[in-house]
Amino acid sequence: MKPINDTFLRALRREKTEYTPVWLMRQAGRYLPEYRKVRERMGSFMALARNPEAACEVTLQPVERFGLDAAILFSDILTVPDAMGLGLSFVAGEGPVFARPVQSEEAVRSLYVPDPNTELRYVMDAVREIRRALADRVPLIGFSGSPFTLACYMIEGGSSKDFYATKRMMYERPDLLHRILDVNARAVTDYLNAQIEAGVQAVQIFDTWGGALAHGKYQEFSLKYVSQIVSGLKKTSDGESVPVIVFTKGGGIWIEDIARCGADCIGLDWTVSLGTARQSVADRVSLQGNMDPMALFAGEAAIRAEARRVIDDFGAVGSGGHVFNLGHGIAQKTEPEMVAALVDEVHAYSRIKH
Amino acid sequence: MKPINDTFLRALRREKTEYTPVWLMRQAGRYLPEYRKVRERMGSFMALARNPEAACEVTLQPVERFGLDAAILFSDILTVPDAMGLGLSFVAGEGPVFARPVQSEEAVRSLYVPDPNTELRYVMDAVREIRRALADRVPLIGFSGSPFTLACYMIEGGSSKDFYATKRMMYERPDLLHRILDVNARAVTDYLNAQIEAGVQAVQIFDTWGGALAHGKYQEFSLKYVSQIVSGLKKTSDGESVPVIVFTKGGGIWIEDIARCGADCIGLDWTVSLGTARQSVADRVSLQGNMDPMALFAGEAAIRAEARRVIDDFGAVGSGGHVFNLGHGIAQKTEPEMVAALVDEVHAYSRIKH
Repeated sequence: MKPINDTFLRALRREKTEYTPVWLMRQAGRYLPEYRKVRERMGSFMALARNPEAACEVTLQPVERFGLDAAILFSDILTVPDAMGLGLSFVAGEGPVFARPVQSEEAVRSLYVPDPNTELRYVMDAVREIRRALADRVPLIGFSGSPFTLACYMIEGGSSKDFYATKRMMYERPDLLHRILDVNARAVTDYLNAQIEAGVQAVQIFDTWGGALAHGKYQEFSLKYVSQIVSGLKKTSDGESVPVIVFTKGGGIWIEDIARCGADCIGLDWTVSLGTARQSVADRVSLQGNMDPMALFAGEAAIRAEARRVIDDFGAVGSGGHVFNLGHGIAQKTEPEMVAALVDEVHAYSRIKH
Repeated sequence: MKPINDTFLRALRREKTEYTPVWLMRQAGRYLPEYRKVRERMGSFMALARNPEAACEVTLQPVERFGLDAAILFSDILTVPDAMGLGLSFVAGEGPVFARPVQSEEAVRSLYVPDPNTELRYVMDAVREIRRALADRVPLIGFSGSPFTLACYMIEGGSSKDFYATKRMMYERPDLLHRILDVNARAVTDYLNAQIEAGVQAVQIFDTWGGALAHGKYQEFSLKYVSQIVSGLKKTSDGESVPVIVFTKGGGIWIEDIARCGADCIGLDWTVSLGTARQSVADRVSLQGNMDPMALFAGEAAIRAEARRVIDDFGAVGSGGHVFNLGHGIAQKTEPEMVAALVDEVHAYSRIKH
């Protein structure tokens, strides 16, 4: 079924739209009081993510509050390595932690591709639940972490500032890292295909840490596996095409390479000029982004001005598609009223320009 | 006086050299046991930085141990705001902290340009002491943080992951941030000119956090003030030209803009291909960098291979100058023997290519 508001999907495919669609990375999250209520009720982040009804409830909250043009599955980028048995949990103030990080050759060799319809069944149940609750109002985005980003957490055992263990493996034992990345790429392909079968209408691959790699290493250890996933994805669902978005934080410098990975849309952070990016990809892909999430702390007038600047930077819509987003996840202390102002400005200002 | 080994200065000026000169950001530091001894004796980082004899001793340690092609003044990028009375200290595990951060309009308005020859006299004394001890063996590099990088620490009061307070001021009260940056730019100009008068033979401006800014904001709030400094610097000392290096971490995407700031050399991190960077600046400036410091943990064979890759990426020397460096400061747990292997490989391999 085509959603009633399919502006987001049309922008991804570079078709004509009446305005610039908008959604926000991490839009279902702690900055919303209604989210915090559900999160508290469920006890832990993973308990919330594993409960399809609760995941559905928080997925819809920002869509209903702000009139966003897409919903994104409430889940985490690390569900796949969790399903591989690494034991994911979230420690307050520290972020994700794996109980059994991958730090030996033996651990690498015992990695396997989980079956998304058994070990990650809770995710597919949530997708089906959300599609029912959305009732085709707006499209639902599915997602996963990229193979390299997953590998960073799997090897480090959690967040890292310098990726010491991952990079050491990359320089010293590239064969081992390639082995992890190959398993991850196959696992993510299966996982995203299962999400598509369950009903997601677009998918985003989050390459949160690809930007920490050296030129050349990024292409070899991150982009290569993202391309492998994109080429293995189901292209349609329910008669409609399923667009793919690839977001590499800090990857603006490699945009021409990324634009050749097969994705329909490239997500960009705020360090990039959308206008320049568009020229360098010659409108072969659509672009998503790229307001600095910190601009949401500047008060309503400045937020509206910044939203207009981003839209103007992308330029005349013509043959190119633009999906408005932040350049990274929304910050925890953002005031919901400021998000409402942002969404209003994007819709109102872009309507004039279309 | 021209140093006996002036390879570094000639590479910065894009003159012919016999091999690729090498120095390492943060080369005088905690990874060296002889440094840790002096640091312990002095009690605190700032006590060490404020003592010209001790600062001279640690400045020379890596030059003598590894045969590097330049010495860099041992100091901190935050000496200027410290001299403005903000009260710099270093908290173990947390990095720099200012006792009196700049968080009100009144605090902004009371900022002033310190006199480098009184309030920062200890730095100039260290420069003179080091020049005497070096006895013209290799050139001495002076340095400062960039106005924007200093402002980040001054406003946040220390390190930050998202630069919440700085960016909030930038979007909400750009006039206030411009005022801080203008004071910083004048203070850094005076400070670097005093270092040049005291004897440094090249200077580097560290724009550690410029890469956190949005496209457009970087040009307006960081690069503009770096350019202002470069145009205000003394061009010669003791009859020799004093080259300027500008290093913006994460600034690879803006290299063409940076190359127009008047600097002689652009420092690059590892996300950039030196070969591509060189084409985009058309050899108008020399380039410095750009090995990932994490590669130093990969064992000797991998380190040597990576050093050769960086040199090959820069390509045939011809009219372009290359100064080998890391793409960021050397990590604390690096083994000195691995640094020795790196320096040896850069010297030996590049000699064949020259």
